[in-house]
Amino acid sequence: MTSTIPATARTSPARALICRGCGAEYPLIAQHACYECFGPLEVGYDAAALARVTRAEIEAGPANIWRYAPLLPTGQDPSARVTLDPGLTPLVAAPRLGAEFGIDAPLWIKDDSANPTHSFKDRVVSVALTAARGLGFTRFACASTGNLANSVAAHAARAGVPSVVFIPADLESGKVVTTAVYGGELVAVDGSYDDVNRLCGELVETDEFEDTAFVNVNVRPYYAEGSKTLGYEVAEQLGWRIPEQVVIPMASGELLTKVDKAFTELVEIGLAEAPAGGWRVFGAQSAGCNPIATALHAGTDVITPVRPTGIAKSLNIGDPAAGAYALEAVRRTGGWMDFADDDEIRDAIRRLARTTGVFAETAGGVTVAVLAKLVASGRLDPARETVVYNTGEGLKTLDAVAGVVGPTHRVRPSLRAAREAGLLG
Amino acid sequence: MTSTIPATARTSPARALICRGCGAEYPLIAQHACYECFGPLEVGYDAAALARVTRAEIEAGPANIWRYAPLLPTGQDPSARVTLDPGLTPLVAAPRLGAEFGIDAPLWIKDDSANPTHSFKDRVVSVALTAARGLGFTRFACASTGNLANSVAAHAARAGVPSVVFIPADLESGKVVTTAVYGGELVAVDGSYDDVNRLCGELVETDEFEDTAFVNVNVRPYYAEGSKTLGYEVAEQLGWRIPEQVVIPMASGELLTKVDKAFTELVEIGLAEAPAGGWRVFGAQSAGCNPIATALHAGTDVITPVRPTGIAKSLNIGDPAAGAYALEAVRRTGGWMDFADDDEIRDAIRRLARTTGVFAETAGGVTVAVLAKLVASGRLDPARETVVYNTGEGLKTLDAVAGVVGPTHRVRPSLRAAREAGLLG
Repeated sequence: MTSTIPATARTSPARALICRGCGAEYPLIAQHACYECFGPLEVGYDAAALARVTRAEIEAGPANIWRYAPLLPTGQDPSARVTLDPGLTPLVAAPRLGAEFGIDAPLWIKDDSANPTHSFKDRVVSVALTAARGLGFTRFACASTGNLANSVAAHAARAGVPSVVFIPADLESGKVVTTAVYGGELVAVDGSYDDVNRLCGELVETDEFEDTAFVNVNVRPYYAEGSKTLGYEVAEQLGWRIPEQVVIPMASGELLTKVDKAFTELVEIGLAEAPAGGWRVFGAQSAGCNPIATALHAGTDVITPVRPTGIAKSLNIGDPAAGAYALEAVRRTGGWMDFADDDEIRDAIRRLARTTGVFAETAGGVTVAVLAKLVASGRLDPARETVVYNTGEGLKTLDAVAGVVGPTHRVRPSLRAAREAGLLG
Repeated sequence: MTSTIPATARTSPARALICRGCGAEYPLIAQHACYECFGPLEVGYDAAALARVTRAEIEAGPANIWRYAPLLPTGQDPSARVTLDPGLTPLVAAPRLGAEFGIDAPLWIKDDSANPTHSFKDRVVSVALTAARGLGFTRFACASTGNLANSVAAHAARAGVPSVVFIPADLESGKVVTTAVYGGELVAVDGSYDDVNRLCGELVETDEFEDTAFVNVNVRPYYAEGSKTLGYEVAEQLGWRIPEQVVIPMASGELLTKVDKAFTELVEIGLAEAPAGGWRVFGAQSAGCNPIATALHAGTDVITPVRPTGIAKSLNIGDPAAGAYALEAVRRTGGWMDFADDDEIRDAIRRLARTTGVFAETAGGVTVAVLAKLVASGRLDPARETVVYNTGEGLKTLDAVAGVVGPTHRVRPSLRAAREAGLLG
């Protein structure tokens, strides 16, 4: 699998894979780490190609992530896409949530639960698998504990391509069902998520898996670029303006860095205006898995891995691959990071639902809870426009709030009973 | 609550409420049954106003149901809407599902699980509550066992309006959570869904509930019109063509009649082309609740109420209010109805997921299973273009398939174990 992106996608603005560590360059192949320094590879673009992209070209595109194909490494040819057509999810005004937190300026929720499998993972999987098919892979795979598994299995089903998804054997039944229903191979591994990941890292090197794209391993550089669309969309939805402040959940930390990269690109090529003082990027973790925020608070570059705990399972990456880059982006833009415990997460899920009608998964609760903390600590300016990213759907983590919400009244089916229960004033 | 639609929405094409039974006309007030004959009221339009609507006007509108505001009774003023902006959900090509059933012509899934609370109810609730606010109501309510409860509670939360939702006390915990999280009043009633409905019918007549719009009771005529958007969208997504065949799930039967009404309107006002031989409307029920299909099969107009059973709970209306009108539409267009049992529903959910990447709730399983039966019995022509409506999300009815899907392999986390399990060929 060493072919480059094929001629049918020749209008891709991608130029090379570039090592984030030493700057070494590689062709656009299936590779995720540098042979020189073992640093992670990232897609680099032809600046002239990006500079030719216009707002009109994007606005004339489809109502999904592919409107940004001129800024992505792959997917320029619609017939070659492997996709559920995610994206262009709602940017929801949240004035009553803002009021509860003392935020006067406009507050927005970017609600990515509206994607086809109800998480932002559909964005990265669509880009990864489109790249993978272009590179000649004929089977799709991932290691996951939930959202990514759903998305890969659904994408493979839509495309009619075989898939093999690896999960820890003790995963909740609901998450098993939402992947197994798509009919691909589903491998339950007796071990932790780290064990599953390690096994996938070994399998990807075998001859038998030479035909298989692991979305977050051998095609990871393309996968990661999909997250840029969460930056592009917010800017376009605000009328081609970058918001002054964004609050973003962190697992590997990659999403945060890619939203920042998207903003940087848009400003560089003249598609969007930066706010007068620049934008500030804020990161959110849970108290049960806060290695990046802890490093920031300690003023160090050294991220000490943790063994994750707590209800925000979709953010539970104890050894975050892009943590150092997230730290860099937050420090460079004058942002901050914080973390929230399980009770704060549950409370934030309810506040968000009550004030906006958006029912978020635990990761969204983390982000809203951290928003409140950032205002309280003075790190986030309540007089500046802020966008908060909700990356997933409450239906997938019902257990998180099942114990704390329920009926407000219980009555027999009669007017008298309703009156006695106080329903008639 | 007898005020008519206010002046701010004067561009509404709605003219009157008209009795479906005797044709008596009423102003656009909060009323759902005829004083003369007790027949159901339906919104009637000013034909000249509808005739002025153009494709360009619709195509320039927002990417949601409100692009069709010129054809709806309310919502012309964006600032007066009570809405989560549902609609413009994907029309997914399903060639591999078609091949499994021997369908050669194009087959499409209209996937309404993509709405904000993941069912088609967001469409009807947005129209009902926008009308309700225009009519002066200050509280929103419904009786429901699931999707409608979620949608009303979420809409009220977004709008910052109090809500009170009535549910049977023995409802599944998951459905309670997905309504309670939005923070409105949630009344658990010790009784069946019919008991809950009856109680709401009594409450709506009390002075204490004079300020309260029950979406499917006192503002039902407006509520029902929201379903027309599922017809408009399919026609627009097909390039302003009416499909030759549509298969639609039936609970009250109202959705089927409104899709047919939407097609009729579009052809009458010249916005869409009808197929050469007209369109044919097919209705789907479950074997556990099939009163409309049973009447059709028996060749009678008399719909005998049933006590619903089976897993397709969102379709379990034993005494369907619009059943007679559904029969009329199916007979007039040369369609048919059929029903599927629980095993067939489960199998259809899996087939749909495996071949399209769409994970449907049980109602979607009913519709796909009935599609297969209609082809097998020769009632539906496999050589004609067909659209199948999926009205809800598989995440809400996980239990339906939890027993029949699961991991395909189980291994220890080692290459050797993977090889022994056959994963390496």
